[in-house]
Amino acid sequence: MTSSDGFSLAEVVAVLTRTPASLDALLRGLPDTWVRRDEGKDTWSAFDIIGHLIFGEKTDWMPRARIILEHGESRAFDRFDRFAQFRESQGKSLEQLLDEFTRLRKENLTALKAMNLQPRDFSKRGKHPELGVVTLGQLLATWPLHDLTHVHQLSRVMAHQYREAVGPWSAYLGVLHCEGHSA
Amino acid sequence: MTSSDGFSLAEVVAVLTRTPASLDALLRGLPDTWVRRDEGKDTWSAFDIIGHLIFGEKTDWMPRARIILEHGESRAFDRFDRFAQFRESQGKSLEQLLDEFTRLRKENLTALKAMNLQPRDFSKRGKHPELGVVTLGQLLATWPLHDLTHVHQLSRVMAHQYREAVGPWSAYLGVLHCEGHSA
Repeated sequence: MTSSDGFSLAEVVAVLTRTPASLDALLRGLPDTWVRRDEGKDTWSAFDIIGHLIFGEKTDWMPRARIILEHGESRAFDRFDRFAQFRESQGKSLEQLLDEFTRLRKENLTALKAMNLQPRDFSKRGKHPELGVVTLGQLLATWPLHDLTHVHQLSRVMAHQYREAVGPWSAYLGVLHCEGHSA
Repeated sequence: MTSSDGFSLAEVVAVLTRTPASLDALLRGLPDTWVRRDEGKDTWSAFDIIGHLIFGEKTDWMPRARIILEHGESRAFDRFDRFAQFRESQGKSLEQLLDEFTRLRKENLTALKAMNLQPRDFSKRGKHPELGVVTLGQLLATWPLHDLTHVHQLSRVMAHQYREAVGPWSAYLGVLHCEGHSA
């Protein structure tokens, strides 16, 4: 059931559990046209996006949840490196990255369950280095939306590769009119 | 290999083959919060989007390919009903729709393969009731991008449900800043 602040741990976990298999089904074995090309200078390919999701599993969500539970607002989160994947994914195949994302997500969901969080925990406060005070509930709600924001990006990056090939149909394909929205 | 107009039937089929399993992995069994809610008046839920994809399999892509091959520009395509899913999906479960989409896509890809299309076929011309002259290659290139445009929409519709729950993180979540782009 969704709580009064529009958040339910079961709903969050339901999405987090499904993202790796959904991305695996979409991307594994696809030709490089779809997975290795980006949208131009300083943009990300599907391969880069999966690398970014992996780095989030390693350094963002669960480490920050632990900082909130152990230190509250007294210790700000470490800053997240948005470009780590360009270093960390080097020499790996997309298939290796998909396997790694699936494994890390599973481990994190096991660790999350072991925390045995209760509704009262969701209002616990932490300190984001840029956003200021945030709650554990907000952190956990952001995790699946971070997945979705990159599914959104991924569909746009892939569609971009056939921007010309669709001819006049480009007028009807909303994804080709998305200009990206990340800060 | 991608042809000079940036289109390859193998690349198109690679995406078309994967979309049903990817959507199934993402959506099957998800709580109603994620799959039955929309973005407000006259917008679509995940459930509506899968119904729309089903109707496309029935009336859009392969029927239009056949019209091009059989009639060329002499017969315009039938208009596509963008609202058919509100009628056709009534009383069905999301799981039934996912099964139906998977089955229809598989049948269509079998029929597409049986057409044994050659590169010279891709320049064959047809008549779209609104866009005017289009080619078979453009139609086939549009099919996977239509999948991707609805993956793009789906991620946005789902994310919308937790717009408030993420608190200050909304600033960083690009998907929450997408206003939709379909004509």
